[in-house]
Amino acid sequence: MKPALTPDELEAALRQIGAERYHNRHPFHRALHDGRLSRGQVQAWALNRYYYQARIPVKDAYLLARLPTPKLRREWRRRIVDHDGDSPGTGGIARWLKLTDGVGLDRARVESTAEILPTTRFAVDAYVHFVQERSLLEAIASSLTELFSPTIISERVSGMLANYPWVTQETLAYFTPRLTQAPRDSDFALAYVRDHAITPEQQQAAQDALRFKCDVLWSMLDALDYAYVSPGRIPSGAFLPSA
Amino acid sequence: MKPALTPDELEAALRQIGAERYHNRHPFHRALHDGRLSRGQVQAWALNRYYYQARIPVKDAYLLARLPTPKLRREWRRRIVDHDGDSPGTGGIARWLKLTDGVGLDRARVESTAEILPTTRFAVDAYVHFVQERSLLEAIASSLTELFSPTIISERVSGMLANYPWVTQETLAYFTPRLTQAPRDSDFALAYVRDHAITPEQQQAAQDALRFKCDVLWSMLDALDYAYVSPGRIPSGAFLPSA
Repeated sequence: MKPALTPDELEAALRQIGAERYHNRHPFHRALHDGRLSRGQVQAWALNRYYYQARIPVKDAYLLARLPTPKLRREWRRRIVDHDGDSPGTGGIARWLKLTDGVGLDRARVESTAEILPTTRFAVDAYVHFVQERSLLEAIASSLTELFSPTIISERVSGMLANYPWVTQETLAYFTPRLTQAPRDSDFALAYVRDHAITPEQQQAAQDALRFKCDVLWSMLDALDYAYVSPGRIPSGAFLPSA
Repeated sequence: MKPALTPDELEAALRQIGAERYHNRHPFHRALHDGRLSRGQVQAWALNRYYYQARIPVKDAYLLARLPTPKLRREWRRRIVDHDGDSPGTGGIARWLKLTDGVGLDRARVESTAEILPTTRFAVDAYVHFVQERSLLEAIASSLTELFSPTIISERVSGMLANYPWVTQETLAYFTPRLTQAPRDSDFALAYVRDHAITPEQQQAAQDALRFKCDVLWSMLDALDYAYVSPGRIPSGAFLPSA
């Protein structure tokens, strides 16, 4: 095992993982942002990604349950408030449903999650199980993909508004608060990892946790691309775009 | 909810699910058996499928732990013996390693599972978690893909021997005992499901469990096909065939 990294070296190694593996580099995302997808393909993305959004506060509740102090739990609890809101129609999940409304999907169909790709379910559930089963350090480190999300969100919003006439600013309302929430959350998680990943083993585990999370997001796009773009083989029972 | 099915109607419905969704219908399997894959693509299949083989006795141990009587546990325990063997070098996992030897893969590389596709890991782990978390009826019903495996095994063995000069009968030694083990195991599981899935809700749950398991196997082949065949985009960190 190599000697321990300094906190700055560890942070640089984590940022390098994002530069190599974050899903902004996936061909499906490039196609989404560049306007090369049909409405049905954008619907398939929004419908599948809903399952990820819907499970994030569950993932965060499992993590919350494992945090040892009120201070840490107050910090992490904000994530659940962000996603679930304070009243009906508020919060990230409700805003994602505005996106699925905006691209023309029926809400009950989206909320049932019956038509998502099996790989979407397996990948998202793997993330929830990871946070339940691994060390607290690994669970927190797996959230660090948020370090890289402001860039992809900016690209996504400007690209989708420019390229799809049926996408409006209101449809993309999910993303605006994420531009401030994600950096606040990832600042906290990064500081925690810098402080608690001390030994080479812990530093390796933190990096592996971030790689795992990048794999979750990447696997979801591989499955969308395979089913709906190239070669375009939709598995039995999954969402069929109309025409 | 519809009225309850008779046991024969339930069995027919389960067999129909296999006819529609079992992975013998996947284009990757057709290509594998028809000799249209390169050695590197066959290696990728064998390396990824190893993770499934290696986790099956773990899945069966979780199921064993939930069975209420010595009689039922004796029945299910045979599956673990079949996979883990009675001494070093025996059992299904050891025979699968003969297959990965035969196609030219280093054993340590296979056994580490470090280079499998993330989707393979997520799908197989989803199966293990399903057996831990769902009802005993659903856990047992999810094994019923074995009803359909003798056909695919026959096709696989004859097709691979005919089409790949570097595949021998010894390489495929894994499959021969499965032709008798799988029907014995699926006869037991089918009898259990016929006896215990009485209400429409239980019958629906049993069918959904079999659909879930078909999705696990199908998702693994989607990921192999996407990474190694069409379009052929291997994710970061996964097995790279040499030349």
